[in-house]
Amino acid sequence: MTKVGIFGSGQLARMMALAVRPFGIEVICAGNKNDCASDVATVVEVDMSCEKSINNFLDKVDYATFETENIETEHLLNKENIYPPVSVLHIGQNRLNEKKYFNGNNMVTAPYKAVNSLQDLQNAVSEIGIPCILKTCCGGYDGKGQFVLKDSSYIEDAWNELGDQGQLILEGFVDFDYEVSLIGVRARDGQKLFYPLTENVHIDGILHTSTVPSKAQNLQIQTEEYMGNFLDKLNYVGVMTIEFFVKTNKNGIAERIIANEMAPRVHNSGHWTIDGATSSQFENHIRAVAGLPLGDVSYNKSVMVNCIGSMPDLQKTLKLPNIKYHSYQKEPRSKRKVGHINLVGEQTISQNLDKILGIIK
Amino acid sequence: MTKVGIFGSGQLARMMALAVRPFGIEVICAGNKNDCASDVATVVEVDMSCEKSINNFLDKVDYATFETENIETEHLLNKENIYPPVSVLHIGQNRLNEKKYFNGNNMVTAPYKAVNSLQDLQNAVSEIGIPCILKTCCGGYDGKGQFVLKDSSYIEDAWNELGDQGQLILEGFVDFDYEVSLIGVRARDGQKLFYPLTENVHIDGILHTSTVPSKAQNLQIQTEEYMGNFLDKLNYVGVMTIEFFVKTNKNGIAERIIANEMAPRVHNSGHWTIDGATSSQFENHIRAVAGLPLGDVSYNKSVMVNCIGSMPDLQKTLKLPNIKYHSYQKEPRSKRKVGHINLVGEQTISQNLDKILGIIK
Repeated sequence: MTKVGIFGSGQLARMMALAVRPFGIEVICAGNKNDCASDVATVVEVDMSCEKSINNFLDKVDYATFETENIETEHLLNKENIYPPVSVLHIGQNRLNEKKYFNGNNMVTAPYKAVNSLQDLQNAVSEIGIPCILKTCCGGYDGKGQFVLKDSSYIEDAWNELGDQGQLILEGFVDFDYEVSLIGVRARDGQKLFYPLTENVHIDGILHTSTVPSKAQNLQIQTEEYMGNFLDKLNYVGVMTIEFFVKTNKNGIAERIIANEMAPRVHNSGHWTIDGATSSQFENHIRAVAGLPLGDVSYNKSVMVNCIGSMPDLQKTLKLPNIKYHSYQKEPRSKRKVGHINLVGEQTISQNLDKILGIIK
Repeated sequence: MTKVGIFGSGQLARMMALAVRPFGIEVICAGNKNDCASDVATVVEVDMSCEKSINNFLDKVDYATFETENIETEHLLNKENIYPPVSVLHIGQNRLNEKKYFNGNNMVTAPYKAVNSLQDLQNAVSEIGIPCILKTCCGGYDGKGQFVLKDSSYIEDAWNELGDQGQLILEGFVDFDYEVSLIGVRARDGQKLFYPLTENVHIDGILHTSTVPSKAQNLQIQTEEYMGNFLDKLNYVGVMTIEFFVKTNKNGIAERIIANEMAPRVHNSGHWTIDGATSSQFENHIRAVAGLPLGDVSYNKSVMVNCIGSMPDLQKTLKLPNIKYHSYQKEPRSKRKVGHINLVGEQTISQNLDKILGIIK
């Protein structure tokens, strides 16, 4: 029986386990026994700062992967059978590296400057202009570790808030019309498949809805080329996600893309694939990691709605036909992602999306 | 969080748990910790002959159900929140009762006689005719506990083989063209939904393939009426399955049905619903048990192929596009059901069914 290890035991690990349990694959997570993956996978505690502890874990599994880029990698480098390559984590773990990497691969990004002091910040604001956004280079997600500078009077406040949080980056605001993400998967033999560009709406920095197909379908081939080159160059194995800003022309046609972030893993904007694609991002990630043939990525029109803080009432939600309810069985908490709802097919979306948004509010 | 208990911890419990984990429903099985449901559900040991042990289990859950009719029911009767009603188990647990029940509900069955002695058997064979089949009234499935009498010289052998296995029933052979099953679900409020008639092929008494739609679609309404009355009369809650023999007329049109067996539970012939229907039999059973609204049963053309003894090679199987591979993570063993493969959609079936049958062989 194939055994796959996952560093992390949250909802992404949970959904990977649910996806491949039917393959007879055993899933063992290095994480916290109270986390939500423990319902459907074995969870063991691993000390990421201890090589022996990590080796013990890796000895238990045939292949390993991760559900988050925010892990200590010191003792993971140079280990075999970890996919994607651990070195890739360093790109996404640091916003500055990530931007440099994008630029080095012909992808346009927002203007940015490294910030290591208040003086740096003042200079960077003069150069990039207002409004702009100060971010920690490492950590920080869902709007955390960020400070928006609406005018230059915010400079000191921004520095006071984030100045002690390690390396910082100041990014210019990008004038864009909407955001999309591309989710692709690469197998060990180099085969690559891509899901359609997904259109994402954020509220307060947290993903609210993802919709396929996006209005930017005309950019599918271009973005696949960007990611495809990137994947091949890195000898990547598994699912990767890149978020792009889209600028439209005066006729509303998507014209220009600006690379925002990459994630070397399954991604919230791909949760619609559980019900909307023949093989989900979770299934395909583990297929790639375990050296199995990739699964078909053909899709139906889909919308995913995130459930933030708490899940909507199950009884009420399931009354709506064809609703796909995904609870991560996490304790409710403000701003916490606790689940999502998928709607698949034109009719289901047109009849139920407004109702779901009303229930979730 | 809703907690559902299942008596049993085999593959049916496993698939129920996998189906409703996304609802945030916790699944606790009364069974064996080594059984395959333990990968995705909590399994506790319960002494079914001890009321206190059963009460302890029922105290842990909001609702309970079962994955098998072969359980001791002595201490389950008169308990609240067990669905379907436990008394229903007695119908399916005894072939004689089952036949009487079918007849009492206007369903035609094979001719049969109760057999309690060699003399009974001799008389029954004279009355029913050769060939016929001697079966244990209780227990026995997948061809076990049965003896086919090809001529009257087999009478003593049959009696020697089964005579000490409790109450017996002699059934006449039914002249039929193929077998179908109807899977229906009834909610607590009386709502009823039915999957399409599924056509089943057995090999050596074990289900080999299930196909929807069946050639007997013209009998859908009639069989739904039979089962619908049955469900209402029993105040049934959950999924029920009835197997029918189908006799065609000279033009090959399904004309007459003969009720064979009922199962008060999810059924092997409904495994195609995991991938081929909007809501699977497993999801709908737990929805009904937990008092949730039923899920949509609309479907795509599907074929399920059982994997008996061992699973086909995962690598080889997943190379075929759109194959849905379901391993129960059970140890290989002769004649044991260890998983199934689903094929959904005309194209997938026409391109891959023969290949799958070749791989599984």
